[in-house]
Order: sequence, then C-alpha cells, then structure tokens
Amino acid sequence: MISLLQQFDQQSPAESGKELHRFAAKLYPICRSITGNGIRRTLKLIGEKISLQVSEVPSGTEVFDWIVPKEWNVNDAYIKDSAGRRVVDFHHSNLHLLNYSTPIHTTMPLSELREHLFTLPAHPDWIPYRTSYYKPSWGFCLSHNQMLALSEKEYEVCIDASLEDGHLTYGECYLPGKSSDEVLISTHACHPSLANDNLSGLTVATFLARLLSGRELRYSYRFLFIPGTIGAVTWLARNREAAGRVRHGLVLTCVGDASGFHYKKSRREDAEIDRAAAHVLRHCGEPAEVLNFSPYGYDERQYCSPGFNLPVGCLMRSVWGTFPEYHTSADNLDLVHPGQLARSLQLCASIVDVLENNRTYLNQNPYCEPQLGRRNLYRSTGGQSIDGEINARLWVLNLSDGQNSLLDIAERSGLPFATIHNATELLLESKLLAEMASGA
Amino acid sequence: MISLLQQFDQQSPAESGKELHRFAAKLYPICRSITGNGIRRTLKLIGEKISLQVSEVPSGTEVFDWIVPKEWNVNDAYIKDSAGRRVVDFHHSNLHLLNYSTPIHTTMPLSELREHLFTLPAHPDWIPYRTSYYKPSWGFCLSHNQMLALSEKEYEVCIDASLEDGHLTYGECYLPGKSSDEVLISTHACHPSLANDNLSGLTVATFLARLLSGRELRYSYRFLFIPGTIGAVTWLARNREAAGRVRHGLVLTCVGDASGFHYKKSRREDAEIDRAAAHVLRHCGEPAEVLNFSPYGYDERQYCSPGFNLPVGCLMRSVWGTFPEYHTSADNLDLVHPGQLARSLQLCASIVDVLENNRTYLNQNPYCEPQLGRRNLYRSTGGQSIDGEINARLWVLNLSDGQNSLLDIAERSGLPFATIHNATELLLESKLLAEMASGA
Amino acid sequence: MISLLQQFDQQSPAESGKELHRFAAKLYPICRSITGNGIRRTLKLIGEKISLQVSEVPSGTEVFDWIVPKEWNVNDAYIKDSAGRRVVDFHHSNLHLLNYSTPIHTTMPLSELREHLFTLPAHPDWIPYRTSYYKPSWGFCLSHNQMLALSEKEYEVCIDASLEDGHLTYGECYLPGKSSDEVLISTHACHPSLANDNLSGLTVATFLARLLSGRELRYSYRFLFIPGTIGAVTWLARNREAAGRVRHGLVLTCVGDASGFHYKKSRREDAEIDRAAAHVLRHCGEPAEVLNFSPYGYDERQYCSPGFNLPVGCLMRSVWGTFPEYHTSADNLDLVHPGQLARSLQLCASIVDVLENNRTYLNQNPYCEPQLGRRNLYRSTGGQSIDGEINARLWVLNLSDGQNSLLDIAERSGLPFATIHNATELLLESKLLAEMASGA
Repeated sequence: MISLLQQFDQQSPAESGKELHRFAAKLYPICRSITGNGIRRTLKLIGEKISLQVSEVPSGTEVFDWIVPKEWNVNDAYIKDSAGRRVVDFHHSNLHLLNYSTPIHTTMPLSELREHLFTLPAHPDWIPYRTSYYKPSWGFCLSHNQMLALSEKEYEVCIDASLEDGHLTYGECYLPGKSSDEVLISTHACHPSLANDNLSGLTVATFLARLLSGRELRYSYRFLFIPGTIGAVTWLARNREAAGRVRHGLVLTCVGDASGFHYKKSRREDAEIDRAAAHVLRHCGEPAEVLNFSPYGYDERQYCSPGFNLPVGCLMRSVWGTFPEYHTSADNLDLVHPGQLARSLQLCASIVDVLENNRTYLNQNPYCEPQLGRRNLYRSTGGQSIDGEINARLWVLNLSDGQNSLLDIAERSGLPFATIHNATELLLESKLLAEMASGA
Repeated sequence: MISLLQQFDQQSPAESGKELHRFAAKLYPICRSITGNGIRRTLKLIGEKISLQVSEVPSGTEVFDWIVPKEWNVNDAYIKDSAGRRVVDFHHSNLHLLNYSTPIHTTMPLSELREHLFTLPAHPDWIPYRTSYYKPSWGFCLSHNQMLALSEKEYEVCIDASLEDGHLTYGECYLPGKSSDEVLISTHACHPSLANDNLSGLTVATFLARLLSGRELRYSYRFLFIPGTIGAVTWLARNREAAGRVRHGLVLTCVGDASGFHYKKSRREDAEIDRAAAHVLRHCGEPAEVLNFSPYGYDERQYCSPGFNLPVGCLMRSVWGTFPEYHTSADNLDLVHPGQLARSLQLCASIVDVLENNRTYLNQNPYCEPQLGRRNLYRSTGGQSIDGEINARLWVLNLSDGQNSLLDIAERSGLPFATIHNATELLLESKLLAEMASGA
Repeated sequence: MISLLQQFDQQSPAESGKELHRFAAKLYPICRSITGNGIRRTLKLIGEKISLQVSEVPSGTEVFDWIVPKEWNVNDAYIKDSAGRRVVDFHHSNLHLLNYSTPIHTTMPLSELREHLFTLPAHPDWIPYRTSYYKPSWGFCLSHNQMLALSEKEYEVCIDASLEDGHLTYGECYLPGKSSDEVLISTHACHPSLANDNLSGLTVATFLARLLSGRELRYSYRFLFIPGTIGAVTWLARNREAAGRVRHGLVLTCVGDASGFHYKKSRREDAEIDRAAAHVLRHCGEPAEVLNFSPYGYDERQYCSPGFNLPVGCLMRSVWGTFPEYHTSADNLDLVHPGQLARSLQLCASIVDVLENNRTYLNQNPYCEPQLGRRNLYRSTGGQSIDGEINARLWVLNLSDGQNSLLDIAERSGLPFATIHNATELLLESKLLAEMASGA
C-alpha cells in the first residue's frame, strides 16, 4: 500500500496548499468562542469536508472540576461617539469585543470606559485578542491609535449579546481502523478571526482527516474540533473509555506561519509519538526543534494531566506566545501561507506513516547475513561501497531480533523511516523477515 | 513557617558577615592540631555560640584500622642564632612548627638543620603548612627568604612540646527534629592559623547550627567539629548507629574566599543532597560548579568509604589545593571576606530548605486541570501569558502524581525550589494537593 | 607477571615495526582470493611465525544461507594488442584481474571489451580492485590512463584461470588459557596486493599471537585468518560451540596507515571489549575516535549478526572506504609504515592487558580508609597534594565494593587502566584487597 505521504505527494502539493488556505479564509470571518453559533457554523463547514459528528453539551453540566458555561452569542457591539459614529465596531473585526462580554447598553464617560478598553501600545495599529470566559465582565479591544483618538467626554456603549443557558458544541471525526486503539488529533476551534492560532490547525486537521478517509488503517483515528480547555475537559469527562484507548496523539496549532517546526513532547517525553515526531522533524529538511513538555500550552494540558497522562504532544511552527502577531489582529490570513500549510500537512502525513508502519519484525536467517546477492538485493561487483538502500536492508536484518521496532532501527541507523520501511517491504517479499505476532 | 533562608535574610546579611568574620578572627591565633589544647580551646569558643557536647577519646584507642595518637601540646619552639636571636619563632606564627613535631633541644650545624626545614621557593615570603602526625619527626616551616638569610654555621633548635598519652577531642552539636533521621554537617577543626581552610568552615557551620537552633525541624541535625581524618574515623567507629541514620550530609571547607561555589558530589553521585546542592548552586546567581566524587579530599573520604557510603558531599568556594594560598601563611584573615562568609551561610540555608521541604504530594484533582480561576489562583483575563507563580502551580499540579518530589518538579520545570515550594503551600491551602503518606 | 604491553616494550618497538613491515612485504605479491593457492601460501607463511591449524572446506558445503564456492586459481591473464604486446598484464599487478574472473581466451573488439574494464577516472594512474565472487563474470581493472591509451580495434583477451570444485581454506591459531572462554581476533586474508587493507591486519594479528604465545593466559585466544564474509560464515557454521565461548573479540583491519585510531563498537555497544577499547584509545596519546556499530563493514558483520550477537568490535586506523587509496593499487607498501604497525600492535597489547586483568576486588577494610601510611603506601609529610599512584590506591580502595571492576574504576577515576592495575597489585600484597570469587 502506498504511504500516506506518497498519497499526499501524488496530489499537487501547491494545489493542496491553495485549497487549505481557501478553507482557512472561509472560516476566518466567523466570530468563534468556546460556545455559540460561531463554533457551530465552523463545524458545519468542516463537516462539508469530512464526516463529522457534532455534540451539544448543556450549560451547567459538571465536567470534572469545571462546569459547562452559559452559551454566548453576539448580534452587535460598538462604541459610538456623540455624532452617532461607530468608533469601535464589532462588524469591522470580531476581535474588538472582549470575548464572552456580558451585554450592556449605556452611555458613560470616557474615564469610566477606559477601564474596559484593551490595547497594545507596543503595536499601536493592532487589535489585541482578550477573553473573560469565567469572570463576568465586558470590554472592547482596539488599536492603541484608535484609543488615542477618543477625545469626547461620553460614549455610547452597546454589547448586544446573550449569555444564557445553551450548549457547548464540539465536533468529532472518527475513522475506524483494524485496531480500536486510537490516534487522537485535537485542535481548538474557539478562536475568532485569528489565522495561525488556530485556523491553521483546524484546516490541517480537516485535510489530514480527509486524506485518511477511506484508507485501510492500522489504528482508529479520532479528530477533535473543540473549544480550548473547557472543550477538552468536557470531551475527556464524557469519553473516559475512548481516552483510555488513545495510543498516540497530537494537538495541532500555529502550523501556518513561516517558522520552522516545533514539537512539544508529551508529559511522558519518550512516548512513541514523541519519538516519531522527533524523527520526522530531524529528517524534514527544515529548521525544527523538539521542546520538552511543560504544563502550560494548549489542550495537551488536559490530555497530559496526571490522571490521564496520555501520550499526546503538540505540533507547531511558531510556538504560541513567542511571535509578535500572537493573539492580535496581525495574526491574519497574510501570516498563513499556502505552502506552509501544505508542508505542515505533509509532515503530519509522515508522522502518521511512522505510527501506521512502526512494527517489529524477526530476521528469519539470524545466523550471519543471508546472501542478499542471489536475491538481487545486493550489488553484484564487489570492491565499491554500498548505497543507502542496501545499507537499510543490512540495518533491518541486523536489528530485527524481536527487540527493535522499525522506528528503533531508523533512529539507530540515522536513516529516514521511509527508507527503513521500504527495505522492510522488500525483505518481507523475500521471506527474509516475518512480522512478530503482537497487537496493533 | 518561614524558610531558613527567609529567617537568615530577615537579619542583616551585612551584619551577619561581620559577625562571622569576627568569630573567625577570634579563632585564628590558636595553634590547633589533631589533638591537644588548641582544638579544646576552639571547641570552647564554639560552645559559647551553640550547644556543644565535647568528647575526649584516650590515646591508644583502636578505631577501625587506626589508633588514636598521643596528644600533642606546644609551649614554645624556635631556632636561635649564635647571638641568641630567634630567627624562627613559633610565637610569631604557629605555622613555623612542623605540626606534631617531636620535642628537641640541641644545637646543630646548618647543613643538618636544613633537612628539617620546609619552604616554598615559588612564594618566597610565605610560610608553608606541613604536618607529620604518624611518622615521628620534627621540623620548621619558614619563608624561603628566611631560609636564604640563614648564614651561620650552627643554630640552637628548640621544640618545647609534649607528645604523650592524652586524648583526642571533638565536639558535636545535635539538634533534634521530628524524625531521628539525620543531616550531618562536618568540618575539620585541626588546622592552625589558616583562615579559609578551615576557619571559614568552622564559622559557617557554627552559625548555621545557631540559625537552626530552636526551629521546628523535620530532620535531626548533627554538627561535627573534628580533627581531619582521625577525627572522622574516630567518630564513625564510636557512632555506627548514628552514622546509619544519616540521610544527607555536607562537609564544609574553604567557604570564605572570593571564588564561586564548588560542590563535590557524594560517592553515590545522585543522592538527594547531591541533587539539592546542584539545584541551589544552579540558581544561586554566582559562578558555581558541581564536581564529581573523588576519594581524595576532606572527611567525605571517610563518610564515603565503601562500608559507609553515606550521602555526604563537600561544599567549597575554592577547591582545596587549587588556590596558591592553600596551606600557607597567605591563607590568612584577608583571604576570607565577611560578605563571602555570609553568602556561604545563606547558600547552606537554601540547601537545608530543600532538604526540609522536599516532600511528595498528590494532586487531588488529577483528571484535567482544576479550575484555578475560581480559587483566585489564575489570571482573570485570557489571551496573555501567565506569570511564573501560576506556571509553578501548573507544574506542581501536573507532576504531583506521587512519583515526583518537589525537587523533581523544580528540576524538571527549571524553576527555583522556593518558587515550587510556595506554589505547593497555596495549593495545599486550596485542598488541591495532599501530602503523600510516608516517612521523614 | 609483567603485562603484555611491558613485554612488547621490552623489545625494541622500532625493530618490531621493521619486522612487521618486512612480513607484510613478503605477503604483498601473492594473489589472494577467497579460495585458492594464494590464501594457502599466505597461511603457510603465517604458520612459520605462529602455530596455525589450517582447515579446508569443500566447495558446495552449505554454511547457513551460503554455499562454499568453487575454488579459483589463476595462471595468467592479459590483454594483448595486435602486435602481441601485453597492454594489461596480471603478472604486473594481480589487481589487474577482476577477482574470481571466469576463464576466457578470445579476441574481441574494443567496444565489447570496454564493458569488462574497470578504471578510476578520478585517480587516472591507479588500478582499482574489483571482485565478482558470486556472479560469474570476467573483467580487467586498469588505470584510467591505460584505458585511454587503448586505440586498436581488436584485442586478444586471455584469462587462464580455473574455477572448479576445490576448497575454501582458512587458518586458526588457538592459545589455551586458564579459562575456556575465548578472545577472538579475526582478520580477512582474501585481499590480493593491498597493504593497509589487509596485510596490516594479517601482520599485526600474527605478531600479537606470537607475543601471547607461551604466556600464562586468563582467557583462551583464537586468531582467525579467513576469507572475508564467506570465511566468517563458514567458520561460524562449523564452530557454533566455540562461537558461544567468545567473551571478547576484535576484527583487525587497516591498521598500518598514518591515520589516528578508530574503534567501531560491537552491536552490543557496551560490551567489555567496547569499553576496554574506548578506554585504551582515550589514553593512547594519538588522535582516536570511537564509532557506533553499523551492520556494514568487515567480518564483525557476521559475528554481530543477531543470531550470534558476539561482543566483537573492529579496530582500524583509517576507516575502510574513507581514504582515497582504499581498494586501489595505491594501497601499497608505502602506505603502511613500520612505526604505525608497531603502535597498532602495542595498542592491541594494551587492550589485551585490560581484558586479562579486568577483575573485581573487595576492600578488606571497607569502613573508613585503611591507614596507608604505616604500610608505606602514603606520603609521610602532610600538607601537600598526593601523587597519581596514591590517588589510584584511594580510588581502588574506595570503589572495590564488589560492584566495580578495575575497568569501572579506571573509567570513573579517569586514570589509565595500567595505573589502576598497578595500585591493585600493591594493595593485594598488603592484604587490603581480595579478589571476588567468580568465573574467568
């Protein structure tokens, strides 16, 4: 069977990149939050690409130490001057509204209003992104220059929003494989008009799911499109059995910008996903760095909480919080390039290929080398060096003693997993290897 | 309870430094050796600062492979020229006398005398420090220039000393804690007028004991003020049971000079004291280096002999033998600064804080993060990064699975132990943590 | 008993080097291959130096996945121009003939002949070395300039060789020791006129065997002089029991050139031979590098196949394949220097010394240090630093708790094995140590 990477490469990666970017652009204008119609609309668009099951969890549901909050929806929000002009307008950018603001409609002096305004003096043209999910509050985010231009004594402030009992919404795409053991791919879907964080993650996850759909799979795959933190907490609380089946997992975020790749290891730090991702990054031909686990970040925080301790890492290009556009209006569609999205998808495909094919084999002729020459698996004229493919065959034969998986062999040999896997297929055809009897 | 470091810092560190230096200055003139009245007088002065139990062990006592030697005391010692002038005079510097010299009173030609003279040609103004504890011998140490000035044919040589059956003397300060498990702090008290080696160690140990006195302690603390080698051998031979209770230990020496810190690991190399000291050094803000164990050095040689293999390391500023003033008259009170003594004491306090507080806790909400926000343990506006204190809380919660002590968490997070410990206290108050049932 | 290194050093190393080089020069002209009279003649000359048992294995014998090939012998081989001049002549250099060429005698156009010619355009004056053991073929190797000079239309081609049922020949030198556990030293003896690869290995192995002959040995030693690959496969197939007794092993190759040393670790990577060789290289005073195992190389490929997984590494100066003269006529007697051969032999002797003397001892006074002074094992005047020999005694005493071998102690102390071993002998004499009861 061709590998997932080969399947991806058979399409035009350039065309894929454009398609990924078009999809991100379609999702961009929607005002998402951890609940409400924004995330519902987002899941509907994702559901047009892949088979998605959407869940609605009522406000007030207890999920571990948390409670599903009220549902938040916005019709309109603005600050008007005395001439009735909207000096700050939600319809211009949904970042203008402090996410989860409580409704208000009043006039107030600028001095009082200021306490509800958030700006970024260091980037005076950018609008910051701020939230207040769990502490009832209201506010506006605006560019620092916009704030400096506010000169009137009083302003009309309107937040036409509802914060009422409703639901928390998330989507799942489940692709069954031969084994019920699962690979979890999780992305947060609660950020409003922010492109790298995390439309890039939503998009790459969607297209990875589409790429996997219809393939014969070793593992079952579960893609989660969930609100950050509370979504992961909710899913885990409602799916403890499925969580127990997770063998490998990835959180995808910030995978569209121009940075090299970063992989943050799971809490276990030596899980197979950690080694697979580190291996793929080492051979990816781009700058790449593996980071140690830390308990702050995205939803790996929940998957890697000590009670679960799931083998879930986090794949990024730029690391959240470290790039200037992070959580501002400058994290827009220009920050996210088609080619970078396509390369991220390609890298995910390579990681999946490792997980799908990382098995352990037994050399059937373990005493001395088998004579590869008469099987046309060696060069015929002696005296010169062998090439990488023959080298890979020797590595696979030498280490296939039942103790080493193909990833072990790839790591020890320094050869890419795909080269080791190709060698394995040839050796299997020649009956020089046999698969170890074992689970998935 | 405030930490030992906080307790120290509440005093004026500058004033502490002066007090430490004054005490060293008071001990400086005494002619100490491995037995005799010099060490007795020294222990008496220490006993004025802390509660000290003094032991006297008779000459001839067998202690493992050794025998307690005869007691040595000196009244006078000199070399006189023909005019009766003392050209070398013990009362000028007690280093002039080869320590443990046998008595003699005679005249002899310079040619014969020379075989009993020790100088340092590379430092012609310094007097070396030499000893001959176990091979009966006599001699004088003098500056090389002094020796070059000797021009007469014959000299009167007098060593008015006694080497007779008597006792070996050492002092112990025992501070009982909740557990009978012990922390051992050991310093050699046998060097005559040498300041860094080891009045600095004597002084810091004395004031550390005073700082700990009256506190509620987790461990029991035992401070040993003993003659080098034979004192440690004697104490171990007479206290095998107490030795078996030692959980952590430090030898203190050369802690007053201007060098950065050095910690020499115990023979185990991964004992808790080794990790605690390395951690504190890493965060101490001064140059600091951790050295591997070696069987040569100070009394850690005995504590770390294979039959005992106690977890005892050695804290120094300059490493013995590596600074030019080592074992010479230039290791005087000018080499030892008040501020450096105070910082050494402060560092010891930080190490003790780690030992006293390094416990293992259990996260009471191990499934997903607990909602810190509603406990006022989180920031309230989302979108910005968290600070170091919140970060410490997340680390403590994430790793408190019963497998990780606070020191483990401090090491893995890269945060100072004190920050981790503070976070732990807050989380305990919020009932988010509970202590693991366990011994000391 | 003096060490093997001391025994070697008692001879004149310069004289040894000349003797080694003379022996290599004597073997140089012989046309060796994996079977035939060349290797027989070679073994006869080796047998004049050491006690050698020669085995003959019939063609057609099955050895694991391989079959012993037909025996190859050459009388003559040439390419003649129309004037009857030999433009390529086997008697000039046995490298001219593709090793294991099938017989032929015909004339053919240059265009057809070219397909059977091998040259090195990058080194136009050198003749390459090529083989075709297992695919019936014929050919000539010549310098690129020689080939460019071929201008006639037709050439007479003659390979007067036989490829017939016969035998594969190899030699063994077995030196029995106190234990039947074996040290294996293996060199390939199948290369024709190539000096570094592997007359250097043959020569050093021969003289190492001679150096060991007549000594009282801890281990039994087996030296193998065998054709590459098929020889190792054949020996292993016929000697599975002896293979099971191999505790340590070395493949020797390319040990005569001017490069620093390289040791390629066994597949186990932490076998005692790996640690012993790495230790000796670290202290050898020449550039030296330890390489990880890889399954390509010389006969360690077979010894380290997963069914055997013997602790056999490979000692080289230049690594095969990495020096320009490798497998060309430029790998001649000028590339191999007497001094380098002697130093390689000396290094082998040091490695053998580690293997022979790496035992574990028990400190008989494990509580505190024993008093070395009264045993004349310490300096008598205190105050100065100790020397390396006393330091070695302290290390041996401190670590001889039954858990550390002398090699462990040498590694942890950073001292050369010989220094540790000398200290051990002294301490044994003083009854401060006793050997652990254990096998070889």
